[in-house]
Amino acid sequence: MSVSKNHPLTDGTTENSRLVRAFQGQRPDVTPVWFMRQAGRSLPEYRRVRDGVGMIESCLRPDLAAEITLQPVRRHRVDAAVFFSDIVVPLRLAGVDVDIAPGVGPVLGAPVRMADDVARLEALELTEEALAPVREAVELAVAGLAADPGASGTGDTPLIGFGGAPFTLAAYLVEGRPSRDHLAARALMHADPELWARLLTWCASVTGAFLVTQVRAGASAVQLFDSWAGSLSLADYEASVAPFSALALEGVRALDVRVPVVHFGTGTGHLLEAMRDVGADVVGVDHRTPLDEASKLLGHRTPLQGNIDPALLFTPPATLEAHVHDVLRRGLAAPAHVVNLGHGVPPDADPDVLTAVVGTVHEARPEELS
Amino acid sequence: MSVSKNHPLTDGTTENSRLVRAFQGQRPDVTPVWFMRQAGRSLPEYRRVRDGVGMIESCLRPDLAAEITLQPVRRHRVDAAVFFSDIVVPLRLAGVDVDIAPGVGPVLGAPVRMADDVARLEALELTEEALAPVREAVELAVAGLAADPGASGTGDTPLIGFGGAPFTLAAYLVEGRPSRDHLAARALMHADPELWARLLTWCASVTGAFLVTQVRAGASAVQLFDSWAGSLSLADYEASVAPFSALALEGVRALDVRVPVVHFGTGTGHLLEAMRDVGADVVGVDHRTPLDEASKLLGHRTPLQGNIDPALLFTPPATLEAHVHDVLRRGLAAPAHVVNLGHGVPPDADPDVLTAVVGTVHEARPEELS
Repeated sequence: MSVSKNHPLTDGTTENSRLVRAFQGQRPDVTPVWFMRQAGRSLPEYRRVRDGVGMIESCLRPDLAAEITLQPVRRHRVDAAVFFSDIVVPLRLAGVDVDIAPGVGPVLGAPVRMADDVARLEALELTEEALAPVREAVELAVAGLAADPGASGTGDTPLIGFGGAPFTLAAYLVEGRPSRDHLAARALMHADPELWARLLTWCASVTGAFLVTQVRAGASAVQLFDSWAGSLSLADYEASVAPFSALALEGVRALDVRVPVVHFGTGTGHLLEAMRDVGADVVGVDHRTPLDEASKLLGHRTPLQGNIDPALLFTPPATLEAHVHDVLRRGLAAPAHVVNLGHGVPPDADPDVLTAVVGTVHEARPEELS
Repeated sequence: MSVSKNHPLTDGTTENSRLVRAFQGQRPDVTPVWFMRQAGRSLPEYRRVRDGVGMIESCLRPDLAAEITLQPVRRHRVDAAVFFSDIVVPLRLAGVDVDIAPGVGPVLGAPVRMADDVARLEALELTEEALAPVREAVELAVAGLAADPGASGTGDTPLIGFGGAPFTLAAYLVEGRPSRDHLAARALMHADPELWARLLTWCASVTGAFLVTQVRAGASAVQLFDSWAGSLSLADYEASVAPFSALALEGVRALDVRVPVVHFGTGTGHLLEAMRDVGADVVGVDHRTPLDEASKLLGHRTPLQGNIDPALLFTPPATLEAHVHDVLRRGLAAPAHVVNLGHGVPPDADPDVLTAVVGTVHEARPEELS
């Protein structure tokens, strides 16, 4: 990873971090670990700073977003921060009428269904100026990480940027709210492939700009979340989704700093190879697919991230520890492994249990597991 | 299938029906088709008779449940009726405090989490007397089918009975309501395997009695729904779920009439073989796995049911017809094929579109598809 004028804050300090090395296919002495949604409702310090502040507002206040991003690093000694935001934030910054309703999720003022709706989206532009709060929050978070010795003791904790994949963004836009089956989105995909392509192209440009902003401001890696991709057949994924996920990553790929890209979805056991092939360096695996099997599906040449079953966080310590060791053992089948949950931290998870998992991972040595 | 004293209403009339023959691995001239949740909210005549009547009440009024069961047969000329009920009906008949909240689904008075909760369930008994409304409704529906020429013109339309698999019932009991990830259920599975086994054994006995009652009253086949099984890894499914699904089917297997058993779940591409091996004759496949691939996973020796993508019901007629033909074509890879959707009929589906799908399936000839 070279220092770049686009990338003033990635000054090389994270280059040799456990996380970045594992994402690049190496095996550091200590297996790195972080948790999706580690910054969030499971932490009392998060609930305190969010008190009375709406979700989107908390993402757009740079000081607050940076503070929330840093909280789990301080508490759990995880090997990475993940930028606190939401996949719909770039939609909002582009001017889409979207809010995040407590207990529901993203809700659109009006769903996007017809050609006119898509044309209205296409008229929106996500400017550098609108993205300023994202840039500032990332810069503050990266500075905070550099000032903290972190898990390794050397202040090299990287920040992972993130964004929603075009399909998942489009599913929210078309449904107008979270849904179980995404029927309206999949119907549009088949009923009007040209309109679908325009919609996903727009989503790719918006999420692409969101990712690029985070890398330029100092993120050392990015993760593309395609939360709903698991609802698709492989054929539909390859024909109607993958090209736009690749498009979303083009901006990050074109930067003169090369950051690792992780790609994650749930229920995507049948899509792992296709999800890698959109241009991901690392594939995130949910709890349904054991890592040794996932690695086999990927020809044992792709670093993996995952896949502790979040349900196991609610089991006795010995049960959880045995599960974490099993995940580590199966992860040895891959060229490299970053430990994570198979899905986000449940809001009612006990933070002390998460801290204990970090300890279990950091204390385990590969040679003890095989 | 022999006539039996236990089975007064299966008098042989459905034995040569398209559906039963396909379930037995044969290929009738016309491919049979029915739809999961064909009796339900998509039909105006259903909404009319349900007006002011709660969901559970409508399941427990034999005349009403039979009428609702017959409505889609009259309208769509499908090749089977499926008994109108809900997987939690036998829980309610056993005395569990469960209701079906409109727009939500099954809601428990109190979730089942501790040993005492399970002991309270074990003290409940699902009596023959309590099951009387189910028996009466099935008898009325079967008599109604016999009096109707049906799709074949010969009055041989079979009734499919159904029940929820123990895991899915347990997921409702433990969570207390529908959930996306079933974390509490999966946590109990790992935290206390003995209590889990007791809970699933009880669920198996209740759903087993529900299935047996339907077959004795005249159902010609049964379908076990494990709606949430797709949230499990294969290892968890095999260790902690499959034995209890097999147990749930034991009662039906012990009857002196042999009815085909279909087993269905969504997102279960990784579980198809294991789901067959609990004792199913036919495997239902959702839209994520193409039928030719599913058949390969099952060694090309298991009849399949499925798997029209419900989202395609909302696309132009030519798009939908091409999809139905593709499903039929891929279904040729299996020894036999019963067409269905990959999931239940969406409440906002246009009934005329469903009727058109039946026409497309009935008019297609295998030799035209290959």
